[in-house]
Amino acid sequence: MEKIKPRTLSGFMELEPAKQVQFEKIAQILRETYALYGFYPLDTPILEASEVLLAKGGGETEKQIYRFQKGDSDLAMRFDLTVPLAKYVALHYGSLTFPFRRFQIGKVYRGERAQRGRFREFYQADIDVIGDGSLDIINEAEIPSIIYRTFSELGLTRFQIRINNRKVLSGFFEMLGLAGRASDMMRIIDKLDKVGADTVREILLEENIGPETADEILRFIALDGNTDGILQTLARYRGKNETLDTGISELDTVVRSLSDFGVPDTHFRIDLTIARGLDYYTGTVYETTMLDHPEIGSICSGGRYDNLAGYYTDKKLPGVGISIGLTRLFFVLQEKNLLNENPPASPADVLILPMTDDLHAAISLATRLRAAGIRTQLHCEKKKFKAKITYADKLAIPYVIFMGEDEIAKDIVALKDLATGEQTNTSFDAALQRIRTGLAERAKGRPIVGA
Amino acid sequence: MEKIKPRTLSGFMELEPAKQVQFEKIAQILRETYALYGFYPLDTPILEASEVLLAKGGGETEKQIYRFQKGDSDLAMRFDLTVPLAKYVALHYGSLTFPFRRFQIGKVYRGERAQRGRFREFYQADIDVIGDGSLDIINEAEIPSIIYRTFSELGLTRFQIRINNRKVLSGFFEMLGLAGRASDMMRIIDKLDKVGADTVREILLEENIGPETADEILRFIALDGNTDGILQTLARYRGKNETLDTGISELDTVVRSLSDFGVPDTHFRIDLTIARGLDYYTGTVYETTMLDHPEIGSICSGGRYDNLAGYYTDKKLPGVGISIGLTRLFFVLQEKNLLNENPPASPADVLILPMTDDLHAAISLATRLRAAGIRTQLHCEKKKFKAKITYADKLAIPYVIFMGEDEIAKDIVALKDLATGEQTNTSFDAALQRIRTGLAERAKGRPIVGA
Repeated sequence: MEKIKPRTLSGFMELEPAKQVQFEKIAQILRETYALYGFYPLDTPILEASEVLLAKGGGETEKQIYRFQKGDSDLAMRFDLTVPLAKYVALHYGSLTFPFRRFQIGKVYRGERAQRGRFREFYQADIDVIGDGSLDIINEAEIPSIIYRTFSELGLTRFQIRINNRKVLSGFFEMLGLAGRASDMMRIIDKLDKVGADTVREILLEENIGPETADEILRFIALDGNTDGILQTLARYRGKNETLDTGISELDTVVRSLSDFGVPDTHFRIDLTIARGLDYYTGTVYETTMLDHPEIGSICSGGRYDNLAGYYTDKKLPGVGISIGLTRLFFVLQEKNLLNENPPASPADVLILPMTDDLHAAISLATRLRAAGIRTQLHCEKKKFKAKITYADKLAIPYVIFMGEDEIAKDIVALKDLATGEQTNTSFDAALQRIRTGLAERAKGRPIVGA
Repeated sequence: MEKIKPRTLSGFMELEPAKQVQFEKIAQILRETYALYGFYPLDTPILEASEVLLAKGGGETEKQIYRFQKGDSDLAMRFDLTVPLAKYVALHYGSLTFPFRRFQIGKVYRGERAQRGRFREFYQADIDVIGDGSLDIINEAEIPSIIYRTFSELGLTRFQIRINNRKVLSGFFEMLGLAGRASDMMRIIDKLDKVGADTVREILLEENIGPETADEILRFIALDGNTDGILQTLARYRGKNETLDTGISELDTVVRSLSDFGVPDTHFRIDLTIARGLDYYTGTVYETTMLDHPEIGSICSGGRYDNLAGYYTDKKLPGVGISIGLTRLFFVLQEKNLLNENPPASPADVLILPMTDDLHAAISLATRLRAAGIRTQLHCEKKKFKAKITYADKLAIPYVIFMGEDEIAKDIVALKDLATGEQTNTSFDAALQRIRTGLAERAKGRPIVGA
């Protein structure tokens, strides 16, 4: 028969089995951590009507989208989880209870130019809190604690959550008489990290900002020091502009709550250069950077917005949310060897090798182990003994149990720890205890190490 | 602004939040149960090159598929998880270790005629064991134990796994001199359950099967009684046809192992009418029916096949697998009121209601509860007290904690159990203990009840 060459589309992540185990562990930690904060899980279709998905229209997104006709329907694959959330909340508004807290971990699609490390299909892991008409500032203060706990559970230690408030920036530019150009200004200062202060200054001058104003802008956004120091300096700007005042108050409330929320001082800082999503965010904004790998950029970003679903409804639906680009994060961790390979990922805890033709005892043992919650495989293929041990090695299965006539006759379990090579002949209960102890030790490892 | 009417495409399941919690619980039980049997999790792209996905070509599938052009690429959305598995195994053959055991829970797409209870986007939950060149029969015997455990964990009690072996049927038809027409014959007898013996007989006669042969076929497939009885009757057919002999031996091995695999007699039976996937399955085949709801049809089906990836590779890759149509199953359970609503699904275990302007104590309490693994929400919106209690009621959050000046001053926790209405003022530790005990009790419930 003529064969079709099997292949996976470029830009589509397809992991080898052991890597997939690691990915799943991360996804499971995200699900569990998000759930701890009282978020509903949510799932929405990957396909939507194009007019719904592209309500906002225009821009880069529309060019990248996977859109097609099927029968009479103009369909598109979702390119983020925010638009489907907006649709969901607008559509089910009557039956939802607000504030509505949901997380969603799902695949999204963007037909970007293929490039190493760029994905056309990738997971996003989002949380959002949506208010009906209003939403208290404390929700903005809670978000960094979720970011902190999530990455800590994953094993990441060297990261920092950078926090700003869009009202501080807008108010500041209003104060300078640059209200109408605030978006332009933010786009420019957002580059500070990448191009440095001198270049930002040059750009500002090119944009016809006077040198004194340019210096004031640079001085403002470069405010440095610890949180208290920045807040004190900011306090000096109070009373000059209403928006700026509100922004300073909100920022103050947010960062002063973080200690109660369990976020240590070491893991956040105020960064007035962060602007993000220029036409969308209106209050607190967040970025999260790995301290030793700034080149990766933000691994978790988001912020406060005033109007989630304006394209679909007149209801005012303010919210705050963050998103982790899970596929890209996983790719980067893998590239930088920051995934925990010790112990290596394994699909089973125990491999049973029957040494007799009669499989009765081996099967019963597998059933007992599984009933006890131990992930168990039975290896009954007609292979040489050595090939079966190699199988356990390759799959990184930590324990092998041999079931021969002797073991069956004596009603014992011959348990081999493949890491130590140690073999013990004990009762089932003793073997189970030993396995459980070993697995508990192995389970202590987090998915990320060394960062 | 002109509004776009928000809508979800017909045939696409989008659940309300509490229902989604139930769905996730089921998906999580599937993941955990499959993992107990030593399967790797696997994830493959939803989009594939059309030539790869449609390698088999033709048939109903091709008409239903979501296929489109993007730039130079002819793309299609997967319509099952088997073809992507075949591609995966053929593509990564060199780096996989066999037998390769994987589970995959993912969305698939079929543009079927829209109809109540028919879905165009739906989850399948598959497991497969793939051998390299050969695969021992014991893998076919293990599958029913996975089906049994999976549905038992979900809370289903009244179900039965129906088991057959395709070689028994093929061999039987060979014996009758109907070898070339075995597929036709199987298609006809597969209808026995739906149309009854008389109609099957009529159809057989119309197909020019002699009346005696027709009666012999009907007698054979209607073999009834307990497992031993059927095996004894089948044994009488031994020695007449080689394929039939192999089939009888395999069926014997499979069903006689089931007790060791932990499947009670009550939950399986041999059913010689089951044929399934006519050109694909070659050995043991399975269907699973809910005893009180036969009209639903099979809720978990699959079988043994000899050649997973023949369209992509010359390697012989036999396997055995099953699939649960999760979206349809969930829909049916919902329709028949078989989803456990007691306790109702909730996104949080505790709702903290701060009664003071200073949120310090309330936030710290939330942080402590979350650190202790309790899913906690803080309700800080400017709402009336009654509205906040209604919020807890609507979300079915079991516990509310009030944090007023009195509680803060005395360092106690005012915990209200919303189910009993009982309120207790205790230390944090005592409150935590009470919450944990209550949650453990609630956690005993399974997702399915009454079936």
